[in-house]
Amino acid sequence: MARQQVAAAVAATLAAVAAVSAILAGEVYRRRCRRLATRVRELEASLAAAADKTAAERRGRVRAQQSLRSALSEKESSSDDKKKKKHTKAFPMASIGVVQSCFSTRNGTPRQPLVVPLARATVVLDPSRVPAEALEGLSDYSHCWILYVFHLNTDLDKMWNDPARSKLKAKVRVPRLKGGKMGVLATRSPHRPNPIGLSVAKVEAVDGHSILLSGVDLVDGTPVLDIKPYLPYSDGVIGAAIPNWLEVDGALAVESIHFSEHFISTLSDCWMHVQKQSLYASADEFRNLVKEVLSWDIRSLSQRIRPHEVTIKDDAHNGGSKIHNGHSNDEDHQSVDPSTSVVYHLHLDGIDVSYRIDQDSNIVVENAALLSSAVNQHRYSYLTWREKVVTL
Amino acid sequence: MARQQVAAAVAATLAAVAAVSAILAGEVYRRRCRRLATRVRELEASLAAAADKTAAERRGRVRAQQSLRSALSEKESSSDDKKKKKHTKAFPMASIGVVQSCFSTRNGTPRQPLVVPLARATVVLDPSRVPAEALEGLSDYSHCWILYVFHLNTDLDKMWNDPARSKLKAKVRVPRLKGGKMGVLATRSPHRPNPIGLSVAKVEAVDGHSILLSGVDLVDGTPVLDIKPYLPYSDGVIGAAIPNWLEVDGALAVESIHFSEHFISTLSDCWMHVQKQSLYASADEFRNLVKEVLSWDIRSLSQRIRPHEVTIKDDAHNGGSKIHNGHSNDEDHQSVDPSTSVVYHLHLDGIDVSYRIDQDSNIVVENAALLSSAVNQHRYSYLTWREKVVTL
Repeated sequence: MARQQVAAAVAATLAAVAAVSAILAGEVYRRRCRRLATRVRELEASLAAAADKTAAERRGRVRAQQSLRSALSEKESSSDDKKKKKHTKAFPMASIGVVQSCFSTRNGTPRQPLVVPLARATVVLDPSRVPAEALEGLSDYSHCWILYVFHLNTDLDKMWNDPARSKLKAKVRVPRLKGGKMGVLATRSPHRPNPIGLSVAKVEAVDGHSILLSGVDLVDGTPVLDIKPYLPYSDGVIGAAIPNWLEVDGALAVESIHFSEHFISTLSDCWMHVQKQSLYASADEFRNLVKEVLSWDIRSLSQRIRPHEVTIKDDAHNGGSKIHNGHSNDEDHQSVDPSTSVVYHLHLDGIDVSYRIDQDSNIVVENAALLSSAVNQHRYSYLTWREKVVTL
Repeated sequence: MARQQVAAAVAATLAAVAAVSAILAGEVYRRRCRRLATRVRELEASLAAAADKTAAERRGRVRAQQSLRSALSEKESSSDDKKKKKHTKAFPMASIGVVQSCFSTRNGTPRQPLVVPLARATVVLDPSRVPAEALEGLSDYSHCWILYVFHLNTDLDKMWNDPARSKLKAKVRVPRLKGGKMGVLATRSPHRPNPIGLSVAKVEAVDGHSILLSGVDLVDGTPVLDIKPYLPYSDGVIGAAIPNWLEVDGALAVESIHFSEHFISTLSDCWMHVQKQSLYASADEFRNLVKEVLSWDIRSLSQRIRPHEVTIKDDAHNGGSKIHNGHSNDEDHQSVDPSTSVVYHLHLDGIDVSYRIDQDSNIVVENAALLSSAVNQHRYSYLTWREKVVTL
């Protein structure tokens, strides 16, 4: 009897143990399931997110490729959506060369061509775009047109990357009107619907891929779109009339220009470094260039009105000049006229020329300093230049 | 005693049942775990795939946007790969308006501006690109420049879709040289590195978004890139010299122009239909336009040399005219001179004007016919025109 009892008890115990362990094992799996289920939910969520991301990237890619196509190709789209076509209609004009000019920056670059006869520049064409034969016969003309891009306009990126949202200024201030405004297409302002510039220049010589010019109003580095010969019988309009507000000529003429001793000496120091790559024969010829450039008040309107403001709007391609205030040297303390305490800077052919101008438009040129950019420039020197010009 | 045995047995049984059920439940969870684990592996795999896909799309988008930027923006790319930069350097110039000209086709469009004073055109600006205020002040100038696209050049697509492979003709034949060639940049040929045209015109009036011009050499439908005022003090170069081969003026002058009775009568028939949308006051004024246009031999060189060839190269933007041979009418049989048996066609303001020219440059204008394109054209009529011009 006792044995049976023991056996039954053992069986019960074993069974209980088995049950408990089974339950424990089940519990382990249950927890693991919960973890896995959570992971599954997480993964499904991130998969959905990834799909959205991919779609977004694809949309971006397609958009970019479409704008690229519409920008690069001028081919008529088969779409009848005229409106759309109108907005995507862009003609890709490629630079055929670049201007190497005596005007290192916009500051002091004349507002019109031929007013500074000594203003020299070389248009160096890109041989991969234009063979040298394309220039054959150009040197038989005294003048040519340069069509170029106002590449220093600060609004170019916006204009070209987001034309829809870039707002064109319909009216612009004109120097001659002392701040008065005109319709942009009634001016030669650089801020135009298409930033294309048109300037005439004197053809001095043609040398291979390069055109040597004088009387330019082009800033160094300007991309060139086209060169056309000047045809007096069609380009020179006899008796062309202009509005009265333009008649007032010499409005910006300067009263006098004086070169200080300090300028003369500092210029001759600079000359040692720049003469090899200068477009000018001597320090004296360079000084004549400075004289020609400064003979018109090259300051922007805001500078003339408020000579003390250091930060000024200066996003015009031509005209305007940087102001460095507190740039003190001897002369600073001799003068009491506040306007003369402002030193203006002019960058010509790699030389920084600083000057002052008083309220009666009398200019004192004070200092010449070497621009770092001037050193080791590889460009036409006067020697090459004269040689080419003489061979004409 | 018996009770104890029963109890133990029951306990054992219950425990066993519990154990079995627990084991079964565990089994269920084990299987579910296996399923979930598999799902997790699947999800992880597709997530990795999705990540790759997103990365690929992103690379594509970035590539496209970069080329777009290098094409649209003029900003120097930091890349040192100058060669690549050079080739992707394009400035997208968008049309700001279109020319509505009396010259329905290139045929007869003058080779230079102002030689045909009666040549009228309207530049209609796109309001979405240029607000009307942008034209404020333009009517105070007597003349303006029109910068435009030589949109009828047959090589534009190749030039813009595959610039690398489109070959620029470095030298072009010039009419004045009777087939002699010149460097393209020494001519005003429409086939230039960048197909930008430059023409001066007389400003008759400005009316909202439209500029009424005369003396134009622009063909109907020409896309306009820019309008600039003509500034005599900088655009009119005094004493500009041109090569000898251009000095021979009047080289293409016509000896005489005779209007046949048949032309007069057919013209008056046409006039009934076109007068409402014509830029001219009367059939007589239109005849004067024809006279001005034909006073210079407008035929292409190949036509002048070989008047019998029916198919002729005619991809110049200006000049050249279609030949319709065997187009016989009464006069055909009166003449024996072979050259006069060729009938040339001139399309002006929606009217097809046909004429003959003999070897001594005597012209007989024979017939006027309505061009289908002329009907229901919505454009400036002379009535609007005169009204606007008078209000100046």
